[in-house]
Amino acid sequence: MKTRIHVTLKPGVLDPQGKAIHHALEGLGFGGVNDVRAGKLIELDLADDTSDADLDAMCRRLLANTVIENYRIEKL
Amino acid sequence: MKTRIHVTLKPGVLDPQGKAIHHALEGLGFGGVNDVRAGKLIELDLADDTSDADLDAMCRRLLANTVIENYRIEKL
Repeated sequence: MKTRIHVTLKPGVLDPQGKAIHHALEGLGFGGVNDVRAGKLIELDLADDTSDADLDAMCRRLLANTVIENYRIEKL
Repeated sequence: MKTRIHVTLKPGVLDPQGKAIHHALEGLGFGGVNDVRAGKLIELDLADDTSDADLDAMCRRLLANTVIENYRIEKL
């Protein structure tokens, strides 16, 4: 079972990586960029009998820092 | 215009970050994980008149290293 975990910073959390990308895009001459936020994408290939509870626990215990990050589970 | 860029390593490219996550999941007692690949998720807030060609150029010139990475553009 292929699963994709989208990990994004919560609104309001400073994002220096996103800022650096924003700055670099402007430096390359790309106008019209209002905001950039950087996150993580984790693709898991799991056994078919993996429960939703296990998947959620993986996110909470390892993949995302829930103090500053949100996560979204997408099953493919 | 909100746009999400998914950047993933091409198949066959070594992924030490994914390996580390895989190892850590097993260390936490999560079985049934066959493979883990780590990628990047970049959320752009763009002016509405940004062309698809510009968006593609941003990916090719800065956001993804097309030698080792694939990218996918998702408009929200």
